[in-house]
Amino acid sequence: MTFPAPLTGVVPPVCTPLTPDGEVDVPSLLRLVDHLVEGGVHGLFLLGSTSEAAYLTDLQRMLVMEAVVGHLGGQLPVLAGAIDMTTPRVLDNVRGATAAGAQAVVVTAPFYTRTHPAEIARHYRRVAAVSSVPVIAYDIPVAVHTKLPAELILELAADGVLAGLKDSSGDLGAFRQVVTGARNLTETTGFSVLTGSELVVDAALALGADGAVPGLANVDPHGYVRLYRLCRSEDWDGARAEQDRLCALFGMVRVGDPARMGGSSSALGAFKAALRLRGVIDCPATAEPQIPLSAEEVERVGKYLAGAGLL
Amino acid sequence: MTFPAPLTGVVPPVCTPLTPDGEVDVPSLLRLVDHLVEGGVHGLFLLGSTSEAAYLTDLQRMLVMEAVVGHLGGQLPVLAGAIDMTTPRVLDNVRGATAAGAQAVVVTAPFYTRTHPAEIARHYRRVAAVSSVPVIAYDIPVAVHTKLPAELILELAADGVLAGLKDSSGDLGAFRQVVTGARNLTETTGFSVLTGSELVVDAALALGADGAVPGLANVDPHGYVRLYRLCRSEDWDGARAEQDRLCALFGMVRVGDPARMGGSSSALGAFKAALRLRGVIDCPATAEPQIPLSAEEVERVGKYLAGAGLL
Amino acid sequence: MTFPAPLTGVVPPVCTPLTPDGEVDVPSLLRLVDHLVEGGVHGLFLLGSTSEAAYLTDLQRMLVMEAVVGHLGGQLPVLAGAIDMTTPRVLDNVRGATAAGAQAVVVTAPFYTRTHPAEIARHYRRVAAVSSVPVIAYDIPVAVHTKLPAELILELAADGVLAGLKDSSGDLGAFRQVVTGARNLTETTGFSVLTGSELVVDAALALGADGAVPGLANVDPHGYVRLYRLCRSEDWDGARAEQDRLCALFGMVRVGDPARMGGSSSALGAFKAALRLRGVIDCPATAEPQIPLSAEEVERVGKYLAGAGLL
Amino acid sequence: MTFPAPLTGVVPPVCTPLTPDGEVDVPSLLRLVDHLVEGGVHGLFLLGSTSEAAYLTDLQRMLVMEAVVGHLGGQLPVLAGAIDMTTPRVLDNVRGATAAGAQAVVVTAPFYTRTHPAEIARHYRRVAAVSSVPVIAYDIPVAVHTKLPAELILELAADGVLAGLKDSSGDLGAFRQVVTGARNLTETTGFSVLTGSELVVDAALALGADGAVPGLANVDPHGYVRLYRLCRSEDWDGARAEQDRLCALFGMVRVGDPARMGGSSSALGAFKAALRLRGVIDCPATAEPQIPLSAEEVERVGKYLAGAGLL
Repeated sequence: MTFPAPLTGVVPPVCTPLTPDGEVDVPSLLRLVDHLVEGGVHGLFLLGSTSEAAYLTDLQRMLVMEAVVGHLGGQLPVLAGAIDMTTPRVLDNVRGATAAGAQAVVVTAPFYTRTHPAEIARHYRRVAAVSSVPVIAYDIPVAVHTKLPAELILELAADGVLAGLKDSSGDLGAFRQVVTGARNLTETTGFSVLTGSELVVDAALALGADGAVPGLANVDPHGYVRLYRLCRSEDWDGARAEQDRLCALFGMVRVGDPARMGGSSSALGAFKAALRLRGVIDCPATAEPQIPLSAEEVERVGKYLAGAGLL
Repeated sequence: MTFPAPLTGVVPPVCTPLTPDGEVDVPSLLRLVDHLVEGGVHGLFLLGSTSEAAYLTDLQRMLVMEAVVGHLGGQLPVLAGAIDMTTPRVLDNVRGATAAGAQAVVVTAPFYTRTHPAEIARHYRRVAAVSSVPVIAYDIPVAVHTKLPAELILELAADGVLAGLKDSSGDLGAFRQVVTGARNLTETTGFSVLTGSELVVDAALALGADGAVPGLANVDPHGYVRLYRLCRSEDWDGARAEQDRLCALFGMVRVGDPARMGGSSSALGAFKAALRLRGVIDCPATAEPQIPLSAEEVERVGKYLAGAGLL
Repeated sequence: MTFPAPLTGVVPPVCTPLTPDGEVDVPSLLRLVDHLVEGGVHGLFLLGSTSEAAYLTDLQRMLVMEAVVGHLGGQLPVLAGAIDMTTPRVLDNVRGATAAGAQAVVVTAPFYTRTHPAEIARHYRRVAAVSSVPVIAYDIPVAVHTKLPAELILELAADGVLAGLKDSSGDLGAFRQVVTGARNLTETTGFSVLTGSELVVDAALALGADGAVPGLANVDPHGYVRLYRLCRSEDWDGARAEQDRLCALFGMVRVGDPARMGGSSSALGAFKAALRLRGVIDCPATAEPQIPLSAEEVERVGKYLAGAGLL
Repeated sequence: MTFPAPLTGVVPPVCTPLTPDGEVDVPSLLRLVDHLVEGGVHGLFLLGSTSEAAYLTDLQRMLVMEAVVGHLGGQLPVLAGAIDMTTPRVLDNVRGATAAGAQAVVVTAPFYTRTHPAEIARHYRRVAAVSSVPVIAYDIPVAVHTKLPAELILELAADGVLAGLKDSSGDLGAFRQVVTGARNLTETTGFSVLTGSELVVDAALALGADGAVPGLANVDPHGYVRLYRLCRSEDWDGARAEQDRLCALFGMVRVGDPARMGGSSSALGAFKAALRLRGVIDCPATAEPQIPLSAEEVERVGKYLAGAGLL
């Protein structure tokens, strides 16, 4: 299958179900993939932040890729995160992911090191020069502590280095700058601008985004697909009502007590607890060293599901 | 050889010489190790930040370990960085490094993820529970964007989780809190408190540190060993003069134009240029996506060497 | 005049024209006010960040308030920033501004100090207890280095402490949480949710915001008023076209060379240069220690004006 | 009295005692001054961060200055913080403080605004051009979110703009760069390099600092003066023992529960509670919106005093 240019629609960053002892739970993972396909999503993003890629070993990353690609049989485009610190290590990830069937790779700015914009540009140019599949920039300052400048993304898009942007910066103004700047480019190169937000998908699509990569779509793929279709048909009132329902559902990411755990533990724990409660996966375990949700916190996740009509 | 408890003295974080095409230059690496041994250092720290561990692939990391451990033949204690994002990935690094002969592993707080202090504690406890060699905490907020609290380090030291601290935070006040708190512990458990600073080694040793892990000791191991001995013999005037000479030499890390490159490119580029100028390694290349120093910047590195009597 | 509850529409943060020697240029200020009134704006926000409140002395702040309030004669609601570090100093500002005729005050979280959320809540409660006019929270993390949590704002709104929010955080997802949470409250208390963005005003209004406080409305009040009306009449295509034009115009904030000046110098310098080029104010000077734009940079501001049909 | 060049010794940043309703408690303030003078300190720093300058109104700032200067009668040099956001507001503070008798002013980088190094330089040059007394740079990144580069300080020192540095950055390596760079300058211009640390005063003096400005010297001026003298007589073992005692005492700054209050509330609350327990001031109140220590937390302050032999 040819990778779509531009990629559009709802492309969930797929959670990675784990067994109680931290191994990839492949049967649950494939049930989750079926749940997403059945929900009508337009592609899958494996090994992203929501997939706990930062926690998965290299072997686990490969296992996830191979299991999902084999299971899908080319039904949907598959993107793979190549989450690592610098160019040589990212390239190892790119080679592994493409060998396992990824049709595009999603790459952040370097992290751990102290990075200059010129080095970020060099990073993407080197990765793209070696990669056999399209490279999509992953803007996630909360993780890598650098914001990708809109000007840099557009320069790399114009040069054919980048095939798209997955924006998890939360900054819709800067995102719009990329959308607008990419508009002419898109006619010729198919550059794809995707929001990673759960909360402003309607706004992002209204201002011209190609699609969305919301972690919460693991829990409610039907909702985000419905939202996407309402936006595409320019039913903005309907879209706003659906988005409002999903925003309320998203409140689940804050069930974890901040005095006891970090934001990743709370959000990823809530998504997995919800998937368990919905009967999609067997076990809500998150990877070490994340703190598990308490029984009472899981109960609150259930209330969010009930409130959104999902239980 | 038994790992010393506490580890003391000068333990350079060994640079990783590369060929022009980015492969590990093993002959240069072994000449660098000989240069350090000949300089009288008390241990070697492989695969740390100064070693460009964040840039080396897994295979390159293994190659470095095996080459150096084989070459050393047990002459000196070897510590290995296990630089990765979270517990499962760090554990993979720990297994690899210990299989290759590391006698201790050096582990940062989780990064990329949003981490809570309780998760940092859990991280170290899990790593130590699995590791077959001592675990040393690596406090490097500039890279991981979290400062390890002194109280947490002391708690983990008291519980036998941590065997030491390598402090690259630059905060000598917090470092002193660990030194003082570890003093009683040290009598029984041999907890080792090491500064990662190039600039205040005399001060750190005067207030009770066990040793130093200065990146600049790649360039001038004799100088740091001399400084260590002057401090141990309580010749504080002599120590200050030697430290002042080394501080002036350290100015080389700022030769790179900040409008053109990041701090890592400048500092690591300068260390490698200096090693090339001193005839220790063959090629000053740094890993991608770092920006190389210009000829004029390399010339300025030479002036720093000359100023310190090293050319 | 009664302060509207909720305040709605376009409420520009009014620039403070200065003479070449740094004094408030009152005739230019009043011409700017006339320009805004003529443009159809719904209120004026004096002494905010765009007003260079951080640079104005106490006397200059008073002079601005008195000149504008006297000139307006109650035509429009006037909000005043009370920009200072902590509660006692903010209260001094509140007293001054209300004595001079402010109908509401706009207050940030404490800054310079290391602040806990409980202290931010306490701050707003004390300020509101003393203030004789409504208090609007000013969320501007780029300046105060704290993000106001949506939950805190809603709690203070429910308790009648806050009358509104001016959001300059750039985080539209969090903003939406406040808009949605305030919806019921608004029916009874008139809580006003205003975006400080120049770039996503259409999106903010579409999701339920009451109005906008865009710095760029100094330069093109007619454009923002037109945008507001298009949104209110649910002409989303028209709104998007107008917003796109304003986004292009906003590019002027980046004319200043980042190697030579900070972001405040560039953005405030561009707004003032544009007002000078449009014939509204006499002198484009910004306050010390900001770096002035070069002649070539001012010329580029002119091109942005021409591109937007404003010259 | 001529301002000493360089200023040397222990120069406490004087706490500002408040009444229960938040007014300056002048009798307590003067008793605190007497306590410090009697302890042998070499100068007083009023209106710094430890003085809660960020919380004091302009009138309160003036009252503090006038009360202390009048009381001292020229016995000791008096420095005054001019803590405000930008040049024009700092200049107002400078004028007020010098009119009230300050013999030097202490000035931070601009804050609240987004500042470029070139603007920081311009800021200090303008302040010094207007000030009738020497200007000392105050490096406090935790408050202003900018670190003053050593190169910039030395450039401004060489140009006669700055008369000294008060370093509260915690970065002893960068501090040393200023000390070393200022050594030649000092012979001609008397540039004074002062550490704001409580914890590494011995180390700072050993490497050439001129003096210290430790907040904890409010509580134990005798201890810091003793420490200073031990360092000056090069009794490094004695100095280390005294510094260790003071480090243990400094633990009091962490008595406040971090789940309930910020770091400023805890540290300033502890200093004032200690002064109350030692009988120096009447009331331990801190300014709004700081959270007061609980009775149990105050009791723990008492234990720190007892442990240091001060009760």
